[in-house]
Amino acid sequence: MRPDDEPSIDPSHPRFQSLKRRQRLVSAFKDGIVVPEGLIAQGRGEMFDYLLGEETPAPALIAEQAAAALLLLSKRPAISVNGNLAALCPEEIASLSKATDAVIEVNLFHWTKGRAKLIRESLEAHGARNVLAENPDALLDGIHHDRAKCHLKGIFSADTVLVPLEDGDRACALVDMGKKVISIDLNPLSRTTLCATVSIVDEVTRALPNIVRFSNDLAGDEKRMSRIIDSYDNARTLKAIYGQIADRFVKLAKI
Amino acid sequence: MRPDDEPSIDPSHPRFQSLKRRQRLVSAFKDGIVVPEGLIAQGRGEMFDYLLGEETPAPALIAEQAAAALLLLSKRPAISVNGNLAALCPEEIASLSKATDAVIEVNLFHWTKGRAKLIRESLEAHGARNVLAENPDALLDGIHHDRAKCHLKGIFSADTVLVPLEDGDRACALVDMGKKVISIDLNPLSRTTLCATVSIVDEVTRALPNIVRFSNDLAGDEKRMSRIIDSYDNARTLKAIYGQIADRFVKLAKI
Repeated sequence: MRPDDEPSIDPSHPRFQSLKRRQRLVSAFKDGIVVPEGLIAQGRGEMFDYLLGEETPAPALIAEQAAAALLLLSKRPAISVNGNLAALCPEEIASLSKATDAVIEVNLFHWTKGRAKLIRESLEAHGARNVLAENPDALLDGIHHDRAKCHLKGIFSADTVLVPLEDGDRACALVDMGKKVISIDLNPLSRTTLCATVSIVDEVTRALPNIVRFSNDLAGDEKRMSRIIDSYDNARTLKAIYGQIADRFVKLAKI
Repeated sequence: MRPDDEPSIDPSHPRFQSLKRRQRLVSAFKDGIVVPEGLIAQGRGEMFDYLLGEETPAPALIAEQAAAALLLLSKRPAISVNGNLAALCPEEIASLSKATDAVIEVNLFHWTKGRAKLIRESLEAHGARNVLAENPDALLDGIHHDRAKCHLKGIFSADTVLVPLEDGDRACALVDMGKKVISIDLNPLSRTTLCATVSIVDEVTRALPNIVRFSNDLAGDEKRMSRIIDSYDNARTLKAIYGQIADRFVKLAKI
C-alpha cells in the first residue's frame, strides 16, 4: 500500500509472496483499513493455503472460470469488498469491476463510516470507479444490526454477488435472498464456502487475476459462457478439493 | 502477562484456553512485545491446532520426550525466544531453562533493540535468568540482514537449539550449521518442521510444560536419555501426524 513505509522483505525468501501479503495487511492495519480481527483471519487463511500447497488447485481454476462466466452473464453483478481484500488487491478489484461491469460495494463486518470511506478512497486511488461505501440505504434480510447494512443500487439489487473473504452469516443470507453467490475463501469447510453457488477455494490475490483473465477471454462469447455454467458442478469441485488435501496427507503419511 | 488488566473470559467457554492465549497475545501486542505479524502467525497456528483437535497428538508427546533428552544431554543447549513465545509462556521458558541448564536468547524476525529489551525484562520478571537479548555479537551463516543476528555465547555456539515458532529460513540455517534443532510448530508442513532434528507439532503452551516434566523426570538418568534418543525416529513421528490429519480429510471427501 505505502511502499515507502514498508521495511524491505528479502525477495530471496522462499515465502516472499506470503510475507508480502502479510506486510500489506499490517500496513493497512496501521492505516485503519484492516481491523485486528482481520489479521487473525489472514493467519487462518495462510494455514489453509499451506494445505493446498500455496498454489491454485485445479478444481479452483474451474470454479474461477465459472465465476467469470456467471459475472459476465449477470444483469447486475456486484463485488463485495472488505478491509482485508482492499488491503491485499485493490488493483485487481478495479480490473475485475471493469472487465465484468460490476458495481463495487464496501461491506464491512466491523462497520464504521470512517473505515468505509478510507477503503473507498484507497480503491479509487487504485483505479476503481463506481464504488458504493459510506451511505448504505438498505438491509440484508435475516441479518441483525450493522452487519445487515448494504446499498440498494449495489448488493441489495444484485443478481450475482462476488464475496471474497465473507462472513458465513452474510453469504448465506444473500443465497437465501435468491442471489447467486460466488465465494473466494481458502477455508474449504467454512459456511461461506459450503453455501455459495460457486465456491472458489483459493487465495484472493491469485484468484482475482485469474477471474479477470477468464472474463477477458470469455467476453462476448455468450454461448461458451452458458456452456461453462451449465456444466459446472460446485459439489464436485468441493469434493475434488477435499480429495486433494486428503491425498496430500495420505501420501505424506506413507513416505 | 498482566492478569489485572485482562478482562475475564468465561472459563466454561469450550475454547477457553485458546481465547486466553489470544488475549495474552493481544495484551503483549499493546505492550510492544508482539508485532502485528505475530497476530497473523497466531491465527495460522490456531487453525492448525483445529486440525489436531486442540490437544497434544500422541506422536508429539514422543517428540517432546526426545526433546527433553536431547536438551539434557547437550553441552550447550539454547532456547530461542520470540515475541509470541514470550507473550504466551514466559514462566514455562524460565522453568525449561532451569530444568535443562539452557541459555535463553531473544531472537526476533522483526528485530528492534527496544523490543528485545522489553522481552528480556518480561522474561526476567517471570523468573528467567541468563537471558541474552539486546546486543547480538554474531551472525548466522547464510541468512541476510537483521534476521541473522545472534549471540556468540548463545545460539551461535550452541550444539542444540530449541526453536519454538521459528521462521523456516533460520531453522534450516541452524541445521546447516551442524546444530541439532528442536522445533515447536503447529504447522506440520512448515520448512521449520521439515528440517528440524526433533519436530514437535504441538501448541507451545502445551508443549513446553510437557518438555519440562520430561526433563525433570529424566534428569540424571543418562542411559535412559540415550536410549530415548537412539530409538527416536523423527520421520516416523511426522508420518503419524500426517496420518492423523489425512484420516480427517478422507472422511470429509467421502461425505
